[in-house]
Amino acid sequence: MAATPSASYSLTLRLEIENNPGMLGRITSAIGEEGGDIGAIDLVRAGRNMLVRDITVNASSDAHGQQIVRRVEQLPGAKVVNVSDRTFLLHLGGKIEIQSKFPLKTRDDLSRAYTPGVARVCMAIHEDKSKAFSLTIKRNTVAVVTDGTAVLGLGDIGPEAAAPVMEGKAMLFKEFGQVDAFPICLATKDVDQIVATCTAIAPIFGGINLEDISAPRCFEIEERLKATLDIPVFHDDQHGTAIVVMAAVFNALKIVGKRIEDIKVVVHGVGAAGTACTHMLLAAGTRDIIGFDRTGAVYPGRPAGMNRYKEGFAERTNPRRVVGGLEKGMEGADLYLGLSGPDTLPVDLLKRMAPGAIVFAMANPTPEIMPEIAAPYATVMATGRSDYPNQINNVLAFPGVFRGALNCRAKQINEEMKLAAAHAIADIVNEQELQPDYIIPSVFNRSVADAVARAVAEAAYATGEARRETPEHAHEMQTSGGDE
Amino acid sequence: MAATPSASYSLTLRLEIENNPGMLGRITSAIGEEGGDIGAIDLVRAGRNMLVRDITVNASSDAHGQQIVRRVEQLPGAKVVNVSDRTFLLHLGGKIEIQSKFPLKTRDDLSRAYTPGVARVCMAIHEDKSKAFSLTIKRNTVAVVTDGTAVLGLGDIGPEAAAPVMEGKAMLFKEFGQVDAFPICLATKDVDQIVATCTAIAPIFGGINLEDISAPRCFEIEERLKATLDIPVFHDDQHGTAIVVMAAVFNALKIVGKRIEDIKVVVHGVGAAGTACTHMLLAAGTRDIIGFDRTGAVYPGRPAGMNRYKEGFAERTNPRRVVGGLEKGMEGADLYLGLSGPDTLPVDLLKRMAPGAIVFAMANPTPEIMPEIAAPYATVMATGRSDYPNQINNVLAFPGVFRGALNCRAKQINEEMKLAAAHAIADIVNEQELQPDYIIPSVFNRSVADAVARAVAEAAYATGEARRETPEHAHEMQTSGGDE
Repeated sequence: MAATPSASYSLTLRLEIENNPGMLGRITSAIGEEGGDIGAIDLVRAGRNMLVRDITVNASSDAHGQQIVRRVEQLPGAKVVNVSDRTFLLHLGGKIEIQSKFPLKTRDDLSRAYTPGVARVCMAIHEDKSKAFSLTIKRNTVAVVTDGTAVLGLGDIGPEAAAPVMEGKAMLFKEFGQVDAFPICLATKDVDQIVATCTAIAPIFGGINLEDISAPRCFEIEERLKATLDIPVFHDDQHGTAIVVMAAVFNALKIVGKRIEDIKVVVHGVGAAGTACTHMLLAAGTRDIIGFDRTGAVYPGRPAGMNRYKEGFAERTNPRRVVGGLEKGMEGADLYLGLSGPDTLPVDLLKRMAPGAIVFAMANPTPEIMPEIAAPYATVMATGRSDYPNQINNVLAFPGVFRGALNCRAKQINEEMKLAAAHAIADIVNEQELQPDYIIPSVFNRSVADAVARAVAEAAYATGEARRETPEHAHEMQTSGGDE
Repeated sequence: MAATPSASYSLTLRLEIENNPGMLGRITSAIGEEGGDIGAIDLVRAGRNMLVRDITVNASSDAHGQQIVRRVEQLPGAKVVNVSDRTFLLHLGGKIEIQSKFPLKTRDDLSRAYTPGVARVCMAIHEDKSKAFSLTIKRNTVAVVTDGTAVLGLGDIGPEAAAPVMEGKAMLFKEFGQVDAFPICLATKDVDQIVATCTAIAPIFGGINLEDISAPRCFEIEERLKATLDIPVFHDDQHGTAIVVMAAVFNALKIVGKRIEDIKVVVHGVGAAGTACTHMLLAAGTRDIIGFDRTGAVYPGRPAGMNRYKEGFAERTNPRRVVGGLEKGMEGADLYLGLSGPDTLPVDLLKRMAPGAIVFAMANPTPEIMPEIAAPYATVMATGRSDYPNQINNVLAFPGVFRGALNCRAKQINEEMKLAAAHAIADIVNEQELQPDYIIPSVFNRSVADAVARAVAEAAYATGEARRETPEHAHEMQTSGGDE
């Protein structure tokens, strides 16, 4: 499929153009002929014989952008002075910064925010460590931790190269959840060292969001950190995805009129996300789930391609003990969850599903099957893409999940809290709105994070994970340190 | 010495007062009699019989504040509704936050700052790791790392309790150096583990500022990190202090008309700061320095109270092989550097110094000798306090030092860069201004950090530590990732 021009490949060409009638038309026509999508055209400087113009063009790829530039360079009377890539420009110097909440302009400011006044605050925390939750940034700050081993679809690109994604994540945390998130990109892939590092840096953080760490290491890291730390540890690639998938499943089932207890599910791709989706489906009552990986159906004692975590997965799934390729699972399946790779679901297999088939093809950017091809055979279809209906996007979950967990000072994010988040997302789409093309709210729907936060905090109180008893109030001298 | 009321112990009393003539006068008189220093008086609400007022009072200590409150409580016709401690109020929720540099309001914003656009930026860094310095927050971000073992004068209070100081430090970094600093408070005191953690988290940072880590562990941690990391590692308690002390020494010597090569120096307190000051004095040409700790003069092979670092210190100092108590060193000394504890320098010893004595008594908050007592015998006197002339305050150094190091992408902060910083601070006070009460600029002098940054960067270029070759420019497509 040919890619369409997008804002993510947006170039600004600065051109010196001879001041002749018709020149601009020739340039824009040339760009159009090359398939470039012209946005703004600005006049930078006008001389008697020469104009300087900035022309912003969306291209479909790096190569396409260069092709457009070459075409313009060949036009007589036009000279390309500079080409800037807006995506790179936006990244110069990074995308987030540290801001003081109040200025330090006078000695009095200094004496309260720093020495000598700060010493009393330090001692109040020293006497009662839980006051760190009220008197430091721990109250609102989350570490976004990666080792750069499974970044987007790019694989193991290292911690430095992962940083722009983690910074983007921090922006999303702030924009949608008012959570302060700081990227921690680790120069180690060793599980023990990652666990030790997260444990060591935990005191300043109110939560840890693990990100883009490859399976099965991510399972062990999360498990061990949850066992030792008293703040929420949440691997977003697993649980963020699972929460949004569950929300979409809840709503899709309403459309096809099936109960979650009764459906047959194929989970295609048993990595971090596939495993977590399976756990949530089981927790919600689903009984018949079969996982498929490159080796085929996962079952207990399978001779190849297993590890400790896949054995655990096998023991909780595949009750009919299906053995073999994907086609064995698709026969009569009600729900297909694709978390594998591009174009891995042949349409012939899709045809074997039960009536009212639900197909979530979430490989990014190219799904397991394109919606156009799946359409005749799928009653409800979702992907990970923003240019098709029903985008499964973690952004719907993690900002609200951590907002809720921080608000109630949760010790961890348990299964009930995740399920509450999924229901909250699903319920944003009301019964009047619900339709096959709208089972999940837009990522820009501002009510989602609030609803998720409330639901998560409620579930935390109900299950005894919340440590905050009373609403926020000003520090009173009697308590010398504020217990909220 | 009785403490005077200060803004760092500032309370706001909310009072319900009977609406009778003279009531406010009785209240303010009572507060005054108890030694409280009244700031703002606000009217919150006025009823027919009752007024609600907020009265802000500076006290000299927690106990003093409580005494004032009790006194007001006893006044007939006045009721204390609430007492809030302004220093604690300021700390609620922490003092810094993460801010996005631009909003994420549209799909185009998302597609450039996050997926799919971010993937190209990631790959540009993956192909050339040094691009992390231009395309991520590494360019401007410093970790403020502590294990909470030597916080202010409070000792080993732990990482949570140290956080308010580290947040304050981050505020100072931003306010004076436009550096983004993030506090990392470590739940370990193990040197190996601290080194491993700093090494692991280094990829996102452009520098590491070690803070409030007890000696001699701080020496080993800094040494090992400098050996392995390619970003500046700077223990502020050592080098920040030493830079400001050196600046003050340079100017004090101008006043007494002595050359740095000729002076006899006593360094009282051979911890982190004392050791670093000694190294800088030696680097600047001083030949006769004697260190004193609790055991007495430090000399090679001393039988008690030594460690690897003190042996190193001993070998480079005490050329006259002085043995014994502080009195042995003070005889004929030109410069006394106090970095020990309160009231540890008897005035009798001060009298033994050479004419034109320079006395820096920097223990905080109570100096080794109070300026009032030292005055008759010291030509130039400095302390760590803001309420006496010549305050030796690290804030004069670290923001500019890191600003300069980040600007030129220095690999480390070497001796030449530190010395350049000291000269830059000293030179802010010009020859017309220079006098015994003014040898060092105010912490609020905004030209200091700029001057330090320029001097540090120049020294970095001169000594080959700078990695940035050209001034900042916009990303050009040809290089697909911006080498600046």
